[in-house]
Amino acid sequence: MRELQVVVVVADGLGDRPVPELGMRTPLELADFSPVADVLVKSSVGLWDPIEPGVRPGSDTAHLALFGINPVGNYPGRGPFEALGAGASLQPGDVAFRGNFATVGEGMVVVDRRAGRFIPEARQLVEYLNERLGTIDGVEVRLYYATEHRVAVVFRGENLSDAVSDTDPHVEGVRVLRCVPRSGDPAATRMAEVVNRFTERVHRLLEECPINAERRSKGLPPVNAILLRGAGRMVKYPPITGRQGISLAKAAAISATALVKGVCSILGFEVYTPPGATGDVRSDLMSKAREAVDLYRKGYDLVYVHIKGTDSASHDGNPKLKLEVIERSLKALAYILDRVNLGSTVVAFLGDHTTPVTVRDHTSDPVPVMLYAPGVLPDGFRELNERLARRGSLGRLRNVEFFGVLMDYAGRSEKFGA
Amino acid sequence: MRELQVVVVVADGLGDRPVPELGMRTPLELADFSPVADVLVKSSVGLWDPIEPGVRPGSDTAHLALFGINPVGNYPGRGPFEALGAGASLQPGDVAFRGNFATVGEGMVVVDRRAGRFIPEARQLVEYLNERLGTIDGVEVRLYYATEHRVAVVFRGENLSDAVSDTDPHVEGVRVLRCVPRSGDPAATRMAEVVNRFTERVHRLLEECPINAERRSKGLPPVNAILLRGAGRMVKYPPITGRQGISLAKAAAISATALVKGVCSILGFEVYTPPGATGDVRSDLMSKAREAVDLYRKGYDLVYVHIKGTDSASHDGNPKLKLEVIERSLKALAYILDRVNLGSTVVAFLGDHTTPVTVRDHTSDPVPVMLYAPGVLPDGFRELNERLARRGSLGRLRNVEFFGVLMDYAGRSEKFGA
Repeated sequence: MRELQVVVVVADGLGDRPVPELGMRTPLELADFSPVADVLVKSSVGLWDPIEPGVRPGSDTAHLALFGINPVGNYPGRGPFEALGAGASLQPGDVAFRGNFATVGEGMVVVDRRAGRFIPEARQLVEYLNERLGTIDGVEVRLYYATEHRVAVVFRGENLSDAVSDTDPHVEGVRVLRCVPRSGDPAATRMAEVVNRFTERVHRLLEECPINAERRSKGLPPVNAILLRGAGRMVKYPPITGRQGISLAKAAAISATALVKGVCSILGFEVYTPPGATGDVRSDLMSKAREAVDLYRKGYDLVYVHIKGTDSASHDGNPKLKLEVIERSLKALAYILDRVNLGSTVVAFLGDHTTPVTVRDHTSDPVPVMLYAPGVLPDGFRELNERLARRGSLGRLRNVEFFGVLMDYAGRSEKFGA
Repeated sequence: MRELQVVVVVADGLGDRPVPELGMRTPLELADFSPVADVLVKSSVGLWDPIEPGVRPGSDTAHLALFGINPVGNYPGRGPFEALGAGASLQPGDVAFRGNFATVGEGMVVVDRRAGRFIPEARQLVEYLNERLGTIDGVEVRLYYATEHRVAVVFRGENLSDAVSDTDPHVEGVRVLRCVPRSGDPAATRMAEVVNRFTERVHRLLEECPINAERRSKGLPPVNAILLRGAGRMVKYPPITGRQGISLAKAAAISATALVKGVCSILGFEVYTPPGATGDVRSDLMSKAREAVDLYRKGYDLVYVHIKGTDSASHDGNPKLKLEVIERSLKALAYILDRVNLGSTVVAFLGDHTTPVTVRDHTSDPVPVMLYAPGVLPDGFRELNERLARRGSLGRLRNVEFFGVLMDYAGRSEKFGA
């Protein structure tokens, strides 16, 4: 089979439920598809359930499935992915936790699980700790700042275990919990000991920290502990290039969102963040489109473009902003479509999951998909939305099936059988 | 996400194949949907395969899937569920068999595997045995009467095994089989011994029983043995309330059918059987609807209403009766819809499996589903049947997916991932 180049454009959180503010229409139903209509009319459309119907995907699990890894039974928990989202570069075997800056009183009793939630000095505190924490029993520890009071904590060393309990009691008025092993494995016993020494050391360092002296002098509660939860040990995923049965030599991802960059990076994509790409609604999508065309021309087999603004507008519950970002995404898509060779390229446009502006969070609703490929069954639609997608030739694909279809149209997958 | 209350109404065995008597229409196609049309028009419709396409569900396995438990690989066999259907209250670890009252002759040779099938004294015999059986090697034994010659036999004790063979030879003219262990586990050896002692003790007790003297004097064959088959050890299912990733604090089920009550009970529902609810075609469905509204107003997160009559009419092959029960079900549904707050409630109406009146048994045909939820994509249908359901926005969901979708619309499910 002839191997074609593949371009995938994801508008994060694409797809909606009817929006009262839009007269019970959806942003997609109102969007102007004319920039891409000439190609759309020759495309198949359909729906994709990133995990399976009824399961609400995270951006991480959705991206794993989009790139052919079924996250079910193959997901180490949120700890490592929160760390990726906070900019950590993880290696297989690293154990990561989600953490909270917290306020504790006498005897390590938790006074405020979030130390007031809004902590202007949080980044400084992370830096202060990273400079002083060093290693614990030979295990490297590193903090990454996430948002508000949230941090990710990554432990790196030989033979670490994630079979350990939380130190976060999840309620206030009780002591910070001692971390205990959850399996008979000696590695779990050691990990629990490392975590307990981490908790003590962080507490001592924060108590000595001048930032807390200043906070106390202003009458603010000290930020003097980190509560850990959701230990997860980073899995080794088969890279997108050189995967069994899939022929892809070079893959590039364009994104300005730490979590997506992190996932793409562990999957073996080369990751690019072009100038002006900000990972929010103001991001310069044409800059991403130019980068995509540039990488396409350089001969990458798979070029992935991630657009975050659609999801941000959805989490903010702003349908008009979502509509605007969708239309800008379509212009970026049109720029790409105008410059690739449609005779030898597969181009997909879809969401990674649905984030209805009416819900402001990820739901399990299937995402609309447009798939252009030479020879694909054309559905003849000149627009794409939640209702039309239900009538498309692709039908309703789930989990890794979409990746399979994509690779098949690109002539890049092996036959299963003789 | 805002958590909504959920009401699920199941018309057991809903769905049909075209019925010659009805001019190749189905009962659903002829049913008057006007009582619920105003809400139906705002609902999504679709199809549900309780297990998967091509697998004929039992009412037990269908209900497990309906409530989020995939029964595939998680079903202990029919023994325990037949016992639930016969009114047993089972605990995890109990081992249950399906049993037949039988007639044996010299040397325990089976003369009639069903002792004539119609046994007017069956309930009395069960009572007689329960009064006398006691424990065997510390294992409690209890019989439950099912139907005709059928009983369920439940063994309760520490560390019981279901890895044992049947005593029912499944043919006549041969001896009752000795129960033998099917694994090397000592618990299986002991269980087989307990079963063999049970067989002997039952035989001796029945031979001594005055009922058999009377039967013999009338020239009837004695009921002097119980043949066992299908050992199953009751599984511990995660309860519907407090299940990982699902936020439901209180759930109630309304049913008059022992098997459904049993399944709901082991899943942690509070089970109600209001006055007039009989579990057959004459059941007072409005009484169930009133109970549902009452429980809804008391703040139950999930209220489940089970209607058996549709299935009973189907097993009887009576399309007109099925149509009548469907229309009474829709009136009960309308009563509920009129009294819940549609701005904050999810309401589903569906079958647990299909029982076409033309087949008189459960088939694997997908069941039609109506799903109302605030914000759901409205399909605009004013009726629901096997044909229309194929064009609905829900698409075709299978197994636990429907439960996932329901919980997602109710804002009660956790995200998988970050």
